[in-house]
Amino acid sequence: MPEVLVIGSLAYDSVKTPSGKADKALGGSANYFSVAASNFSKVRVVGVVGTDYQESDKKILSDRGVDLAGLQTVPGETFHWAGTYENNLNEAQTLKTELNVFASFDPVLPESYKNSSHVFLANIDPVLQLKVLNQIQNPVFIGMDSMNFWIDSKHKDLLAVLKKVNIVFINETEAKMLTQESNTISAIKKVAELGPEFVVVKRGEYGSTLYSKAHGFFQCASLPVEKVVDPTGAGDSFAGGFFGYVSKYVTGRPSWSDLKKAVLAGTVMSSQTIQDFSLKKLITVDEKSYNQLLQELHQIISL
Amino acid sequence: MPEVLVIGSLAYDSVKTPSGKADKALGGSANYFSVAASNFSKVRVVGVVGTDYQESDKKILSDRGVDLAGLQTVPGETFHWAGTYENNLNEAQTLKTELNVFASFDPVLPESYKNSSHVFLANIDPVLQLKVLNQIQNPVFIGMDSMNFWIDSKHKDLLAVLKKVNIVFINETEAKMLTQESNTISAIKKVAELGPEFVVVKRGEYGSTLYSKAHGFFQCASLPVEKVVDPTGAGDSFAGGFFGYVSKYVTGRPSWSDLKKAVLAGTVMSSQTIQDFSLKKLITVDEKSYNQLLQELHQIISL
Repeated sequence: MPEVLVIGSLAYDSVKTPSGKADKALGGSANYFSVAASNFSKVRVVGVVGTDYQESDKKILSDRGVDLAGLQTVPGETFHWAGTYENNLNEAQTLKTELNVFASFDPVLPESYKNSSHVFLANIDPVLQLKVLNQIQNPVFIGMDSMNFWIDSKHKDLLAVLKKVNIVFINETEAKMLTQESNTISAIKKVAELGPEFVVVKRGEYGSTLYSKAHGFFQCASLPVEKVVDPTGAGDSFAGGFFGYVSKYVTGRPSWSDLKKAVLAGTVMSSQTIQDFSLKKLITVDEKSYNQLLQELHQIISL
Repeated sequence: MPEVLVIGSLAYDSVKTPSGKADKALGGSANYFSVAASNFSKVRVVGVVGTDYQESDKKILSDRGVDLAGLQTVPGETFHWAGTYENNLNEAQTLKTELNVFASFDPVLPESYKNSSHVFLANIDPVLQLKVLNQIQNPVFIGMDSMNFWIDSKHKDLLAVLKKVNIVFINETEAKMLTQESNTISAIKKVAELGPEFVVVKRGEYGSTLYSKAHGFFQCASLPVEKVVDPTGAGDSFAGGFFGYVSKYVTGRPSWSDLKKAVLAGTVMSSQTIQDFSLKKLITVDEKSYNQLLQELHQIISL
């Protein structure tokens, strides 16, 4: 079975949106990614939680076959993020970032992880992203995510990671910020010049754009969702579906055509995450519902 | 040869955008629509201009075979719109609307127009839209556009027009305003309940969405444009390409598949309009460049 390694956060999130709120609900990039990707492949998690982290929350992953050998549990509290979404559901306002056990996290990979073929560096300190990457022997396909906070505070480290990955997932605002371009198309092209052969720009309800210098643009719609409850985790779920698809269906380096199909898998996963708080809806996706949603997406984008 | 009738404005626009400005440059919905649609079909214009309207500006249309029998020239000044686009290039701020000769416009159709098969009611007073529609004997396919101003000030008349058209072209903000829905998907569905079988929501750089209750959604990307100079007229150019395509290639009522292809034609036209002020770039489109752009769009949206 193919495997995908993810390093990211396992967290408790407090989120307020126009639809309601969730208090210290399960979240974190590694959780969203793993749940989405485990529909396709074996996932290996690298992360850290505090002693307050619920066994039942670990069980959500282990029940899906996710390997937790790289998950450290250390004294202290689990990473806690608090944020709100107001009128613009495409963009979160961070109220609180309590790193807690994440502050002193030193990711050391179990031996069994070092042969991972697919690697996703979720949105964490680029120094940690690099540290993980350097421990993997012969990765085939590497992706990363980031956010405005790291673009500002660890610019140089972020640029170093960008040079080592095959694909970057970034939202429109971040792409513009990173490249100092006001036009999204120009920003995407400049991101690709920073290293990654492929760029995916996530555009919320407007779908996503895949780009490579050699192949140009591919634009995929989002699935129509009438009630966006909580967008938190949408990007990580997208990346999870994307990497799950690539690791399951592609041998060796993915082609342009492979990546376009992976965008569809990511789109399906993110469309589910946003329909409820935490991982509540994402976790209900199974082979049947995935195939139905994929079919629906095909209809929306096909001539 | 198939024919499309358009009623709309022929205007001089003063526009300021981050790229520069144009002072009393040729504009108006009927001009953008006619230039785009005349790449496909014979266009018949219904409108009014003042004695200040340049002969050379009429010639732009007549040189393209556009029928100006329904264009009245009356004493007074031509309609003048002034607006700016600031950071959000998707939305104009109106500074001035000088109706001038448009204020007392009474559209009476020449006999030769009354058999028009395809009719586009561009963004004008819904009372005038109805008046024109009532003079056409046996239209096959009718479309309309509108704007926030009419949604507010002539709500009842607008609803009456909506009941008589096959398709409405509307932007996201207008769709939400018209239906009092904050979610675009819900808004689109509600617009369709107001009468038109088909709805096209124009989403600027994010492309456009076609909807019908029977067929669901079709989402089409925009063509990547790195420098949006002036978005004025993009929607009318889209409608012109769309109606031009339908009137040229479809006999009788268009199918869902026909309309999806018409969205692509509209997308190509609007992508050109926004790259310069006034009609400067749109007017350069010929069969060769249209086919190239259409090919490019196909690549962007095809799996």
